[in-house]
Parts: sequence; C-alpha cells; structure tokens
Amino acid sequence: MIETSSTRSDGRMPNEIRPVKITRAFTKYAEGSVLIEMGETKVICNATVEEKVPSFLRDKGKGWVTAEYGMLPRSTHDRMPREANRGKQGGRTLEIQRLVGRALRAVTDTTALGERTVWIDCDVIQADGGTRTAAITGSFIALADAMTKLKDKQLIKQRPLKDYLAAISIGKIGSEVRIDLAYDEDSVADVDMNLVMTGKGHLVEVQGTAEGEPFEKQDLDAFLSMGWIGIQDLIKMQKDLIGPLA
Amino acid sequence: MIETSSTRSDGRMPNEIRPVKITRAFTKYAEGSVLIEMGETKVICNATVEEKVPSFLRDKGKGWVTAEYGMLPRSTHDRMPREANRGKQGGRTLEIQRLVGRALRAVTDTTALGERTVWIDCDVIQADGGTRTAAITGSFIALADAMTKLKDKQLIKQRPLKDYLAAISIGKIGSEVRIDLAYDEDSVADVDMNLVMTGKGHLVEVQGTAEGEPFEKQDLDAFLSMGWIGIQDLIKMQKDLIGPLA
Amino acid sequence: MIETSSTRSDGRMPNEIRPVKITRAFTKYAEGSVLIEMGETKVICNATVEEKVPSFLRDKGKGWVTAEYGMLPRSTHDRMPREANRGKQGGRTLEIQRLVGRALRAVTDTTALGERTVWIDCDVIQADGGTRTAAITGSFIALADAMTKLKDKQLIKQRPLKDYLAAISIGKIGSEVRIDLAYDEDSVADVDMNLVMTGKGHLVEVQGTAEGEPFEKQDLDAFLSMGWIGIQDLIKMQKDLIGPLA
Amino acid sequence: MIETSSTRSDGRMPNEIRPVKITRAFTKYAEGSVLIEMGETKVICNATVEEKVPSFLRDKGKGWVTAEYGMLPRSTHDRMPREANRGKQGGRTLEIQRLVGRALRAVTDTTALGERTVWIDCDVIQADGGTRTAAITGSFIALADAMTKLKDKQLIKQRPLKDYLAAISIGKIGSEVRIDLAYDEDSVADVDMNLVMTGKGHLVEVQGTAEGEPFEKQDLDAFLSMGWIGIQDLIKMQKDLIGPLA
Amino acid sequence: MIETSSTRSDGRMPNEIRPVKITRAFTKYAEGSVLIEMGETKVICNATVEEKVPSFLRDKGKGWVTAEYGMLPRSTHDRMPREANRGKQGGRTLEIQRLVGRALRAVTDTTALGERTVWIDCDVIQADGGTRTAAITGSFIALADAMTKLKDKQLIKQRPLKDYLAAISIGKIGSEVRIDLAYDEDSVADVDMNLVMTGKGHLVEVQGTAEGEPFEKQDLDAFLSMGWIGIQDLIKMQKDLIGPLA
Amino acid sequence: MIETSSTRSDGRMPNEIRPVKITRAFTKYAEGSVLIEMGETKVICNATVEEKVPSFLRDKGKGWVTAEYGMLPRSTHDRMPREANRGKQGGRTLEIQRLVGRALRAVTDTTALGERTVWIDCDVIQADGGTRTAAITGSFIALADAMTKLKDKQLIKQRPLKDYLAAISIGKIGSEVRIDLAYDEDSVADVDMNLVMTGKGHLVEVQGTAEGEPFEKQDLDAFLSMGWIGIQDLIKMQKDLIGPLA
Repeated sequence: MIETSSTRSDGRMPNEIRPVKITRAFTKYAEGSVLIEMGETKVICNATVEEKVPSFLRDKGKGWVTAEYGMLPRSTHDRMPREANRGKQGGRTLEIQRLVGRALRAVTDTTALGERTVWIDCDVIQADGGTRTAAITGSFIALADAMTKLKDKQLIKQRPLKDYLAAISIGKIGSEVRIDLAYDEDSVADVDMNLVMTGKGHLVEVQGTAEGEPFEKQDLDAFLSMGWIGIQDLIKMQKDLIGPLA
Repeated sequence: MIETSSTRSDGRMPNEIRPVKITRAFTKYAEGSVLIEMGETKVICNATVEEKVPSFLRDKGKGWVTAEYGMLPRSTHDRMPREANRGKQGGRTLEIQRLVGRALRAVTDTTALGERTVWIDCDVIQADGGTRTAAITGSFIALADAMTKLKDKQLIKQRPLKDYLAAISIGKIGSEVRIDLAYDEDSVADVDMNLVMTGKGHLVEVQGTAEGEPFEKQDLDAFLSMGWIGIQDLIKMQKDLIGPLA
Repeated sequence: MIETSSTRSDGRMPNEIRPVKITRAFTKYAEGSVLIEMGETKVICNATVEEKVPSFLRDKGKGWVTAEYGMLPRSTHDRMPREANRGKQGGRTLEIQRLVGRALRAVTDTTALGERTVWIDCDVIQADGGTRTAAITGSFIALADAMTKLKDKQLIKQRPLKDYLAAISIGKIGSEVRIDLAYDEDSVADVDMNLVMTGKGHLVEVQGTAEGEPFEKQDLDAFLSMGWIGIQDLIKMQKDLIGPLA
Repeated sequence: MIETSSTRSDGRMPNEIRPVKITRAFTKYAEGSVLIEMGETKVICNATVEEKVPSFLRDKGKGWVTAEYGMLPRSTHDRMPREANRGKQGGRTLEIQRLVGRALRAVTDTTALGERTVWIDCDVIQADGGTRTAAITGSFIALADAMTKLKDKQLIKQRPLKDYLAAISIGKIGSEVRIDLAYDEDSVADVDMNLVMTGKGHLVEVQGTAEGEPFEKQDLDAFLSMGWIGIQDLIKMQKDLIGPLA
Repeated sequence: MIETSSTRSDGRMPNEIRPVKITRAFTKYAEGSVLIEMGETKVICNATVEEKVPSFLRDKGKGWVTAEYGMLPRSTHDRMPREANRGKQGGRTLEIQRLVGRALRAVTDTTALGERTVWIDCDVIQADGGTRTAAITGSFIALADAMTKLKDKQLIKQRPLKDYLAAISIGKIGSEVRIDLAYDEDSVADVDMNLVMTGKGHLVEVQGTAEGEPFEKQDLDAFLSMGWIGIQDLIKMQKDLIGPLA
Repeated sequence: MIETSSTRSDGRMPNEIRPVKITRAFTKYAEGSVLIEMGETKVICNATVEEKVPSFLRDKGKGWVTAEYGMLPRSTHDRMPREANRGKQGGRTLEIQRLVGRALRAVTDTTALGERTVWIDCDVIQADGGTRTAAITGSFIALADAMTKLKDKQLIKQRPLKDYLAAISIGKIGSEVRIDLAYDEDSVADVDMNLVMTGKGHLVEVQGTAEGEPFEKQDLDAFLSMGWIGIQDLIKMQKDLIGPLA
C-alpha cells in the first residue's frame, strides 16, 4: 500500500497532536477529576483516595495506585454492549486498565504516599482513537490533584511524584509515521504503537504492534522520536497546569 | 422528627426545581445525545437506533424502546464498585433501567416507529439526588432527537411520539413536602416519591415509598399536585427545545 | 378498547378479592412459614431468624429484615428458565424482593428487634397474577410468627411490629377498576397498580404504571379507595390469625 | 462405633420406608405435576413438554428427557443461600439433576417419544433426607402423567415408557443396614447408597459411598437386597396410580 | 446388540488393564506431582499442601483433602470450550472433582494430618476413557508424596494414610464385561461403572449406571469381581512405588 | 541498585537462551501439538482446525487464528486459584492470549487459509519465567503442523505462512541486559520486555515495561539487539523442525 499523500484528514502535520483541552475539578466529589479532550476523544479521569491498601501490601509501609477503565456504550460509532450487563469486562478493557495503573505507579513514590490507595477511574465519553493514551495523560493530572488534596490536609508533606507522565499513540500509514491518530487513521494503520514517557524523556511503556505487515527497527526509532515530540507538548501542558511536582 | 424551618439548603422554595441545563448533541455518534443537569446531578442520555427488534417482537410490525442505566464509580460521594468489574448490575440499577424504558414506551407509538429498536443509555456523571427522574426527562429529548434523525432520513413520516414526558422526585421532610430533592434532602426524607407524567398531565408512573413512617392519602395528593408543578416546568423546557411532537 | 361487560371471568365483583387461604407452619424448619393462596396464586413465605446483621448495620443496635423472591420454573403457564441455572436473577425478581423487604421494614421496629436479621424467602409455587402482593401479605404473617418464636424464647419482650401490613394489586381494564387481578385480567390491563398499606390505613408503597394509555389523577384516587377495601379484608384476616401485634 | 440398638427414631423397621404420599396435578400448569412426600421430605416434581429437542439431537428422530433440581433456601434445618442469588448451581445440585435425568431416560423410549423434550423440575420444599431418591420416584409419575397428556392429544399412540422406575436411599449405621434414611440417620451413616431400579427389578443406578470406613462386598449385597424391598413398595404404589405403562 | 467377538481393539483380555506409566515429580513445584498414563489417557495429578483449613473445619484439630479437575480443551477428540472462558465448571467436572476428593478423604486420617489442607489438582492432558479413575489412582500417589514431604520436614510423624486407594472403570459391551475401557469402548457400553477400592479390598465408591438397558444384580457382581482384579494390579504398583504407608 | 556481578544463577551468558526442547505430536488428537520447554518453563501448545469462522468474518473469504492461554493451578511456586472455578479469566490471561493470537495472525495469510479457524490452546504445565514468549514460539510450530495436515488433506495448496515467528523476553537487572529470563531474574528486573519477531528479523510486537525505574532509548536499542540474537536461535530451530514454509 503506497500512501500518495501525507495530508491528514484534519490538516495536521504528521508530528502534530490534536488540540488538547483539560478541565480540572470536572466532577465535584472525586479528590482529582479531569476531563481530557484530545480532538474528539473525551475521557473522564477521576482519582479517589482510600485510606487502606490491598491485602498483598498490608503492613508494608507502602501505598498503591490502581486504575479501572470503561467506555460508555455509545462512546463509539456503533453502540457496544454494556460490560456491566454482559457480566464481564473484556480483554481490551482489562489490558488498558492494567497499563494505566502500571504507568502511574512508575512515577509514584509509593513509600512516600503512605498506606493508602489511589483509585483511578477512566471513563470514555467519546472515542475517536487514542483513548488509552489520553487516559494516561489525563489520569496523571487527576492523580497529582488528589495528592494536592492530601498535602493540603497535611496527610503527606509533598506530592509523592517522581516525574511527569504522558502518553501518545503513533502509527504508520503507508510509508508515513503519524502521532496521535484519530479513529479513521488508527483503523487503517499498518503499525500501531503506544508510548508512555516521563517528563525527563525516559521510557515507561513501549508497545508496538504490527497490525498488517511486520515493521523494521528504523520504523521503531522513528516512532519513538516522533512520539517524544508529542509527549513533550503534553508534558509542557501538565507543567503549566500543576506546577512543580513536589 | 420536627422540621423547624422550611428553608432548603440551596434557598429554593419547596415547589421549585433546581436549575436545569440541557446540552443536546453532547456526544457526536449517538442519534440523540443529551446531557441533562438538574443542579449538581448530571446524566448523559444517549439514544441509539438499531434496525431490528428483540426476538419476542419479530414480525409483529412494531418497534421497541429500551433503556440501560449506569453510574460512574465516582459519581457519588464515596466511590462505588464498578458494576462491570463486580460482574453484575445491582437491583437498584435494574429497577431504574426498567422504569426508564417503560416510561418512554408509554409515550411512543411503537407501530409508527416500525421494526426498529431505540436503545437509551443513561450514564450518571455526577449524582446529587434525582438521577432516575433526570434520566427520564433527558432521555425523552434524546429519543425525540433520534426520531428526528429517522424523519430526516425519511425512514418515518413523523416522530412517533404521543406526548411529552418528564419526571420529578418529591419527598416529605418532617412536615414539609418538597420537589426535586438534592441528595442531602433525599437521605433524610420520610417519604420518597417519583412521578412520571405526560405533557397533558396524565400519569405514567407513580412510585411512592415510606422510608420512615407510612404516609397518608392527603400526603399523596400533595405530592402529586406539587410534582405536577415541577413537571410542567420541565415539559415547557422540552417544548421549547424540541418543538411540536410530530 | 371498550369493555363491553364488567363481569369478571370468575364472577367476582370489581372490589372483591379472591378466596384467601393461609396455611401456617407450612414447612417445619423455618421460624415462620406461611403458604398463602389467593385464588390460584400460591406463594410460600418462609421467615428465618439469623443472629447477626449485615456489615453496614454492625454495632448500631438495630436489626434488619430482608427478602428474596423466586418462582418455580413451571409456576407459570409456560416454563421459565431457572434463574439459578441462568446464573443471575432477573430485573423483575430483584425489583420484587427489594419491594417486599422495604415494605416489611416499614412496620418493623428494628431497634426493638435487636441485632438480628430476619430473612424472608418468597417462593411462588403457582402464579396467577398478584404474586408480589400475595408475597407481602403472607410474609407479614411469617414475620410475625418468627417474632413470636423469639418472644417465646424470651429473646425479645414483645413482637417489634408497628402495624399490620397487606398488599393488593389494582388494575383498570377498559373503564373498569378491579382489584386483585388474576393473570388473564392483569395481562390486558391498561393500568397496573400495587398498593401496600398498614392496618391503620396508611400508605407504605404506591406503585402505579400505565401499561397502555397514561391515566388520570381520578383513576389513582379510585385505585386507592378500591385497593383499601381489599386490604382491609386481608388485614382482618391477619388480625384473626396472629392476634394483637405486641 | 457400635450400634447398641436398632430401633429407629421414628420406630420404623430397618427395611421399612417412610409413609409416602403422592399428590398429582399439584400445580395447574405443568403437563405432569406431583408432590411427593416421603415422611417429612417433600418434593414438587413438575414435567413440562416442549415441542423441540436440544441442538445435539436435532433431526435424529428422537426425544429427550432432562431434569433440573433446586431446594428452597429454608427447606433445610439452617437456611442455605439461594443459588440464583449466588449466581451458580453448586456441585451437589448439578450431580443430582444429572442423576434424575439419566435415570428417567433409562426407562423412556426416546424414539417413540418423538422430537420433543420433557423437562423435569424437582424442587424441594422440605428436606429430611432422601431428596434425590424422592425426586426420581415422584418425577417418574409426573413424566407418565405428561405422557398421558400427549396421548390424550393423540400426539403419541402410547406412553413411551419401558418400565416403572423408583429409587431409595440405603445406609449403614454402626452394624445396621437401613433404608429410606431420614436426615438424622443420614448424617451419621458410615455408608450411604442410592439405588435406582425398574419395576422388573433391574438396576439403573447404583451409587454407594463410604462416608466413614470403607465397606465390604457383603454390605453392598445387603444394601441391594434391602433397597429392592423398599423400591417394590414404591413401584406398587406407582402401578396403582398410573396403571399399565402403555 | 450381540457382541460377536470379545477381542478388544487393542488386543487386551477383558480383565486386563492398559499399560500404566507413573512419572513422579512430574512438575517441580508441587509437593506431590504425578503424571499417570493408562494407555492413551494422561492425567497430571498435583498435590499442594496449604497450612490452613476451610472455615467449616477451623479449630477442630482436623485437616482436609480436596480436589479440582479440569481437561485441556484439546485433550479430547474434538475441542471442548475452555471452562475458564465459559465462566463456569460443568456438571461433569464438578461431579468428578467431588468424587476424587471424597475418595481420597476415605483413606486419610485427617486428625493425624493436622490443621492443613491438601489440594489435589487433576488436569487431563489427553483423554481416552477412564480419566476419573486414572485421576484417583494417580492422585493417591501424589497425596502420599506430599505427605512424605511433610514427614521429611518433621511436621507429621508418619504419613496419615489408612490404606492404598485405586480406581478402575468397568463396562458391559453386548454380553461382555471389560475393565479399564478406552474411549471407543466406553462410548458403546450399555453399562458404565466406576469402582474405587482400598488396598485391603474394601469398597470406597461404587457407581454403576445403565447407559442403555438396565442391568442385573449378577452383572454388578461380575463388575465388582473383575474390577477388583484391575485394582489389585494398580495397588501393587502403588506399593512398589511408595512403599509401606506409614 | 548496582549489580556487582553479571553471572546468572544458571551460568548462562547474558545473551544466551535456556536449553530448548520441542516435542511435536505431544498429544494425539490435536492437528498440531507441541510441548515447548525453555529451561524449566513448559507449555503445551495445541492447534485445532475448525471449518468455520467467527461471525464477524463470515462470507469474507478469510480465515482466522485465535489463541487461549491457561496455567495449571500448580504450574507456579504457590498454587493459584483455578480460573474455571473463580468463574473468570484474569486480566493477565486475557492479555497474553490476545498477544499470542495477534502475533500468529501477523505471519498468517488468512486469505490463503480459507474460511476456517485455527484455535491455539497454550497451557502452562510449569512456569519459570517467559511463558508467553514460549507460548508464541511453540504455537508457531503447532500452527505450521496443523497447516501441514490441511495440506496433506489437499484442503490447501501450501501452508499459508508468510514467515517464521518466535518470541523472547529481555530484562535489565541492575546495569545488565539479559535475555530469556527465568523467574528468579524476572522478579527482580527493572525493565521487562517481550519481543516477537519474524524469521526475516522484522518486528511483530515490542512490549517494554519499566517495572522499577523508567529506562532510556539506548536501553531499548540494547534490548532489541540482544533479543534478536535469541530469536535467531529459536528461528533456526523452527527451520530445522518444520522446513521451508510453503
């Protein structure tokens, strides 16, 4: 398949992310509540603080961060059956929520957090590609906001965050590498990658999948370089919003 | 328990509903998509049209309207376990979604709708009392909007709606009857009623429950009168938004 | 639909309940065990006393009354799939068992009951309309009998019941209001109401649903008046059987 | 453990079954409906005829007989959790319903039955030992009655039954062999056997289990001889009730 | 059906078991791990020691032995759906694992075992008839090996086993009784029996089922005699492998 | 954490894979059946051919390859609960089986396969790290063997495989990068990567996760180079076993 034009349907440059909009305190009860919009993808990320830890961590002097993910049935083009009605969460759902929790823990100092759990709930209101990466980027802010609440209550001295954290999707369509794919791009991509990185540019998760043809090492290198461009934009926005980490 | 003052915490009169805000086309894929806000209660109501009917209606020349209901885990003061994770929908959830579906069918001409199903998904983003009544009032608009789409595509001649439909909660706190209860009122009410009525003032559902002391027939009469006041406000708003029914 | 005759298929007057038969101590293990027959509807109501309370009530000095409901697969005209085999209870089942538990708690002094739970199991042997109302009326007697056992064992001083409790169904068929509908009537009714009241004539639950056309306030008034006639017959029978409440 | 006396708590001889009471047409909808009481054990056996077969039998010119089994939560001394609420049937339940179905199929001419299924629902109202054997004995009558209905409707020429079928429990308590054990005997038996036989005295199922000490071949011989005495009583009763098989 | 020849497809005599191969320490983590092969039937039996007992045995000074059973999806001729994916274990699975646990407990001195549980996991790698009997025979060795580990660690003084334990299947094909049936024989047998016996020749479980025609007492006698021949071969092998019981 | 020595507990070089043993035709029913052993990790990979496709592929002229994964309860150091008993597959299980299926599809010409499904069942008998990568490497051989069967039956002209496929795990422990980690290494690794590549050296899946500290791009480069060394060894072995692809 030869890509005869690199023009994206929304006119973006290949290394350009979609317009991002962050609404903090989106709902009133959660300790951290963020609506993240990346183009037409919209995800609510709520952080809840619970003053206890899962049984496997009891009396170890450490906290925990975990995530759950869901999509509204009509967040997608066609209606999907409601997982609560089907009686189980699908494999994709479980895979994503494991990824989100793991990524957030990579930048959390769980010892400094103390014996408490932060639950992150990512609920997709509208899906137009990149819901898992938007969930990570938005959840980081919700997590930071929840930690601010703990600090304000003097339950912790400073926010136990080791670095900023953001994520972006990257794809190869024909011979062109693009970041932050919308659904119409994602569905025709030969290679699909999700990249999670810290503010210092370290890697937290690299997940690349050949959807069509297997890919080359130089593709991977290109994906990482271009992904880092998008992640820097997201990190900059996080810094502006939540300030220095501690 | 003696109510020493009738002043509501938000300064409303007993028969005054909370500020209502309706956002149509709230999400972009659903045939009808409404965010209804009644005070701090916020519910997304999405209507999906499917060109087939459940098996019990096959080849009967009739359509169907059905509803599902869910709450985001942190839509409430404390986080609730996610039903998709628990593996089943609770009794309250099932009760509410059966109510919403039944109420909408009461004003739908299912024969005129033709052999198609309208799925209504009510998802609570933030809960501050009256989520089921907000779900009904908002879903009616989403249903009407979905029908407008069918009409625009010339799949139906006119919107198969027999009347407007709205719902309100009513409670008795001490000796005072109030409508559209917020959570802080709902949780101390002796009697809790949900009322669903049509634009012409006919009754579709009357559900009154003594949470504390059983109540009197004259209480019920007062609930109905005062509820109708609130429902008229909601119906007026529906008329302004969606115009004449056909 | 015009009702050309008000004669009921079993010759009853519109405000006449079906013959009621109560068999107490129907099974030998339960602390209270009642078989209630209303016409061809037959429900076993067993009350079990457990000397502990659910976790949300622990150490609050209060007891609890809760109910479960089920139907034998062939209690109905056509065989229904067994819920235990399907792996979940349906929405109707959950709705009914929530109603039965709530209604019984409305007349129970849970503080006087002490930190114990009374489980009510309503199992429908044969269904000919009105199973939920029969379940409530019969369960009240089973509950009272279980309390008598507690009193006989000197675990409580008197039966912690605040009033008698009975329920009846009411329907409108064409222009005629009837009470205690048999299945053949129920399936054609335009409006379907279930009414739960106390011995003193107070309202515990009012649930009216338009199955066909929405109804009027004067219909509701008629339903309540006529329902109260039937409930009085049931309360009288309860008084004869179980005597003064304490 | 030495049994110092062979006197049974209810005064029966070791080879004497409990009083049996059969109520036919116990419920009004089922094609065959039997309440079987063996002493204090009471089981409703309903037979439902369905005019289709499971997919594995489709177009093979044969019918099917299958069974389901359940216990009311308070059919036992202590209340058992309701299987429909727990979300699955336990191992004992599945084991028993497989046994009942298999036993009934052993005496059914499924070719003569034609392409239809008979569902047998065995629901235990009160359990005092021997519920599975009572279920088999009672279900045979319900099955025969359902077949009579088919014959009356001229859907089959004669009842497709090859023989009568009954079952009994046998146990060894200390050194004494007893049949038709009540719960107080069953719970202390060293060996527990269930025997299903035909009217001609052939064996359909033999299930013997050492609950305490393993047992000897001569025990097994004694179990079978004594069990056959009890089964003959049951078969005689079946013959009186349902007459010649065809 | 007349059996015109008694020659078995694999040339065995009617009372001859298939070649048996036992591999101990088959996996490296389990306290006891046995691969048992009986002809083409292959079952892994792993024994796990857990230093606690189920809640119903707490503080009673006794241990517990329990079993679980599963089949690899393609252990059979056609692929079976994976039970973990279907979300529940089937009736046959539950029946078999209850049988295995019960049989092993019959030869275990649970008081001498102490307050610990031995979990037995039987997983069928390849099924060619007789998986449940192979599971019992193999699990006994795994159980003994796990007990040896406990003895080596001086947690128990001697292996708390009261006798050896083995099991065999027996069938009647036409007029010929055969033991240790392979699948091609099992699927055409008129009677199917599973027999569990101890080293001293006592009976632990006798389960005989008429798959086609009901059978006679003399058949049962023949099954038991011939089964005991096969079981003796298995017991001899167990003695050679694990030595004297204590 | 500073690694003071690069010596691996089993004496391997950092870029050396464990001894690999492949047993083909491991079970007798499956169209392809492979036991793959990589050191102490042992996984059975069975391939089943089914002559139909999932509904989403019907009438599209394409085939499908899908995978399921499970672990025997005692394949691990401590016994894990059986997923079939818990009633659902965990997130890790679903994630792995989705990975295996996706990887195999990347080298399958599904059009040439025709309208049939190949089911791959990966069942872990013993787990010592790298079960998912062993599952992929072994399943590729099972898939090829199943395709050989189809070719032998002349259902396809040649094996519809586009390339060989193998997978390896890579980890960073302190400052040392190692491949094919055993469990004792895996559990202390800071970074954990799974790499799936084709015979031509193209990438199919790259999944790298920071378990402790985030990692650098140069780490990723090292992981890929070293992983490719191990994968080449595995591919060579595949070529020797299954020959040229067509």
